[in-house]
Amino acid sequence: MSQSAVSTPGISMDGLTLEQIAARLGGELIGNGQAVVQRLRPIGSASETDITFLNRDKLRPQLAETAAGAVILPESLRGALPRSGNAIVARDPYLYYAHLSQWFWALRQPPFEPGCHATAQIDPAAQVSPAARVDAFAAIEAGAQIGEAAHIGAGCFVGRDAVIGAGSVLHPRSSVAWGCRLGARCVLQSGAVVGSDGFGYARDASGAGVKIAQVGIAVLEDDVEVGANSTIDRGALDNTEIGLGVKIDNLVQIAHNVRIGAHTALAGCVGISGSAEIGAYCFIGGGVGIAGHLSIADGVVIGGMSLVSRSVRQPGMYTGAFPLDTHANWERNAATVRQLHQLRDRIRRLEQHIEQHTESLKTEPST
Amino acid sequence: MSQSAVSTPGISMDGLTLEQIAARLGGELIGNGQAVVQRLRPIGSASETDITFLNRDKLRPQLAETAAGAVILPESLRGALPRSGNAIVARDPYLYYAHLSQWFWALRQPPFEPGCHATAQIDPAAQVSPAARVDAFAAIEAGAQIGEAAHIGAGCFVGRDAVIGAGSVLHPRSSVAWGCRLGARCVLQSGAVVGSDGFGYARDASGAGVKIAQVGIAVLEDDVEVGANSTIDRGALDNTEIGLGVKIDNLVQIAHNVRIGAHTALAGCVGISGSAEIGAYCFIGGGVGIAGHLSIADGVVIGGMSLVSRSVRQPGMYTGAFPLDTHANWERNAATVRQLHQLRDRIRRLEQHIEQHTESLKTEPST
Amino acid sequence: MSQSAVSTPGISMDGLTLEQIAARLGGELIGNGQAVVQRLRPIGSASETDITFLNRDKLRPQLAETAAGAVILPESLRGALPRSGNAIVARDPYLYYAHLSQWFWALRQPPFEPGCHATAQIDPAAQVSPAARVDAFAAIEAGAQIGEAAHIGAGCFVGRDAVIGAGSVLHPRSSVAWGCRLGARCVLQSGAVVGSDGFGYARDASGAGVKIAQVGIAVLEDDVEVGANSTIDRGALDNTEIGLGVKIDNLVQIAHNVRIGAHTALAGCVGISGSAEIGAYCFIGGGVGIAGHLSIADGVVIGGMSLVSRSVRQPGMYTGAFPLDTHANWERNAATVRQLHQLRDRIRRLEQHIEQHTESLKTEPST
Repeated sequence: MSQSAVSTPGISMDGLTLEQIAARLGGELIGNGQAVVQRLRPIGSASETDITFLNRDKLRPQLAETAAGAVILPESLRGALPRSGNAIVARDPYLYYAHLSQWFWALRQPPFEPGCHATAQIDPAAQVSPAARVDAFAAIEAGAQIGEAAHIGAGCFVGRDAVIGAGSVLHPRSSVAWGCRLGARCVLQSGAVVGSDGFGYARDASGAGVKIAQVGIAVLEDDVEVGANSTIDRGALDNTEIGLGVKIDNLVQIAHNVRIGAHTALAGCVGISGSAEIGAYCFIGGGVGIAGHLSIADGVVIGGMSLVSRSVRQPGMYTGAFPLDTHANWERNAATVRQLHQLRDRIRRLEQHIEQHTESLKTEPST
Repeated sequence: MSQSAVSTPGISMDGLTLEQIAARLGGELIGNGQAVVQRLRPIGSASETDITFLNRDKLRPQLAETAAGAVILPESLRGALPRSGNAIVARDPYLYYAHLSQWFWALRQPPFEPGCHATAQIDPAAQVSPAARVDAFAAIEAGAQIGEAAHIGAGCFVGRDAVIGAGSVLHPRSSVAWGCRLGARCVLQSGAVVGSDGFGYARDASGAGVKIAQVGIAVLEDDVEVGANSTIDRGALDNTEIGLGVKIDNLVQIAHNVRIGAHTALAGCVGISGSAEIGAYCFIGGGVGIAGHLSIADGVVIGGMSLVSRSVRQPGMYTGAFPLDTHANWERNAATVRQLHQLRDRIRRLEQHIEQHTESLKTEPST
Repeated sequence: MSQSAVSTPGISMDGLTLEQIAARLGGELIGNGQAVVQRLRPIGSASETDITFLNRDKLRPQLAETAAGAVILPESLRGALPRSGNAIVARDPYLYYAHLSQWFWALRQPPFEPGCHATAQIDPAAQVSPAARVDAFAAIEAGAQIGEAAHIGAGCFVGRDAVIGAGSVLHPRSSVAWGCRLGARCVLQSGAVVGSDGFGYARDASGAGVKIAQVGIAVLEDDVEVGANSTIDRGALDNTEIGLGVKIDNLVQIAHNVRIGAHTALAGCVGISGSAEIGAYCFIGGGVGIAGHLSIADGVVIGGMSLVSRSVRQPGMYTGAFPLDTHANWERNAATVRQLHQLRDRIRRLEQHIEQHTESLKTEPST
């Protein structure tokens, strides 16, 4: 199959003129406003019916070579045009690209049709907006509320008294447990679970776990996105709270009573333990683990695969990860890591020895 | 929305008197046994219609300040009452809280109604107890057995010949593959998968993987809980075995032929490789990785994000995780880690040098 | 319940003669070709109606002791027979075992019956082969294509224009989003998600994330297996590409635009960041994290829990993981790791000092 067929599976479209694009998204149009572009493509593979973008000056050499019909350029490259001669100069080409990608994407989607599929099971005591859409095999329990233009995908579950805000999208097979609340324009990717029980047990005299019933809920504010198969536990007594605009990648675990500040992003495979508080505008790298009952300040960046075991009070970038090496080197160095404390002591003894003897040397008659 | 509305979504309740509580759960009642409590709340935010608990002496200052209608106290704080004057003295307030939380939780649940939803697909050759409940879009295959008072949630899958013990709960969209067995009172949180194929392949002459069919099953003994989107593989030839009362958090992966002893707890994002054996009463911290074909003794605690690559024979706490630091410091230290073996050699050479010269100094005539 | 009952849940079978096995799978038959074996079992627990295999010479002592009715042996053990006197000598006993396990497995499965369950929702504009099977509550959207002998399990979702190749199996509750393509004989274990949105956002002037619509797809070539609850994101502009015969374990996250070469295997809990390229015939250990926009050569093995933060250009084995230790030792050594750079400087100063003084000692009149 051709790349082109792959990229536009089954959907034909007539494209957009550069004038249409600039009229809606802004930017300064250079060249032929009637030129039509049909796809967004990376600069290296764009053809004359494609639009692309250039974000960094160091990619400038590619600009002269691209066959793209048009390029979105930063101010700093205003003078440098592609062969097609068509460009849109934008303050932030990457942001421009984001908006344009949404437009192209929407052109390919079938129109949003409100209504509930005949197979969907919606409790009579649930409130589903007539402007919402509910797909096949979705189950919506009593007391649940589904807002305007919300889309509940195939096989989703919305528990009793749960609230799904206007314009939110639950991709197929995602679920929101009883009482949990999603704000407006939230997105759950497939398989995401909101409101599973937190992991809490007391131990009885025999050492067996006695479940602490989790009676709090999980609250997602507006514009939160949750990745595929990620899990957000409900609170034990208080709630789990995910702030405005938080973006969560796939396979992320968020334990009970965690609080995450606005616009923080969590990459894939992150695990956050109970009652941790994470600030706003943080970026948590992939595979990071965050211990429970600690705080991370606003504006903190944590490098991938790090363990955060104490609070981080100052913004900045933090990392902790063993460096990769050949296995043979790693084995020797890892063995030495286990003696590191002793090595430090040996260095100290050497220093003490040197110091004494240097003294003695110094005090010895050198003449 | 008010916090109160959030915590009791759509459910009204009249509450419990302290006398009712003490009659059922024990403990020594102090103060007004007719006082009614409607919710369990943390000590800092409890109001006069709430009950709370105090577990640690160091939280004692909060006791004087709490507005809670009643407090569950340890023996050591018997003399210290909250403003309300109402308390229940319990040997283990945290365990008492666990039991009470289950009671409050149950009060909020709609009554358990046995029966199969009209949409559920239950093979005629499956045996579903008349006292069990099966929700919408559940699929139960031939030969499966669903015990008394078990609850199969919406969209769950129970494969042929699988056994779900009495009182077990499969939250929506969890699944149990063919032949696997859950004991009594097990819980699968949403999206959990029991009985997926283990990861086993031979390589043919060309290097391509040839699947080793996984003909063993996964057996969960009584009182096992499996977190949201966690996965437990079936065995290759023998079985995967999860012991009595084992508690597994979200996004945990348990490979084929793993065996886990009674009452062990696994925090979120743990991964256990094939044929590993983990003892009883262990605690495996979040994000830990356990290599295959090794043993961990009873009573072992593994710190978060550690890799266990050899057997652990003695109970105790073990950890291995690179400490977090500012990214700049980490970069320098990580670079040095890769030279650690050489550093050790340099220290040894220094010591040898010193030793020789100290000898020579010693043997030199100091006079 | 007996072990035997557990291993053959509800399925009776008459077994295979050794002659039947050798006729189909090859190898040299020694002993009684009419001997019937009913199960594949590990060598330590096989009984006289079981067949087992022996792969490594070091397991030879077990050969004399096994009660197995027959043993698959390597050439090197041709002379050593089990008590039963029955063996099949194979070039690669493990590979032989793989093929035989598939045969035994197939004997236990109910026959594959093509056709669509009455409850399945299949859009009239989807193309489902009459030789395919679609189970209860599966939803298949317009334009989707389901190949011959493909099996779409209960509760699966196949989005519009998605393609499922011949003989592929989607285990219950797995999903393939719009436009994505699976080749022939692919397997998705339960809960696997193919085609979720990649994690991409621009930031607007206020710092809020603006979603980059993910218009690429995910393409899985023939014979790819994806583990339970694993996730494979669709591409942003270009596609995510999983090569021929790639095997992916449970809870693995593959981000947008990742490319993985043929026959590479990824163990559980691996996370691969966006646009990483991984070669053919690699083995990525459990819990490994791979940073974005880097390359890994063919034939690379990465040890469990390692972080790959730079490209790996040469085949070989690589590792980076903090060694496990008692918690007390770890605490001391971890603290020292944070001073490692300074320790190196102290060693250098010691060396310089020694050098100077050794020089001075050398130049001092020793007589």
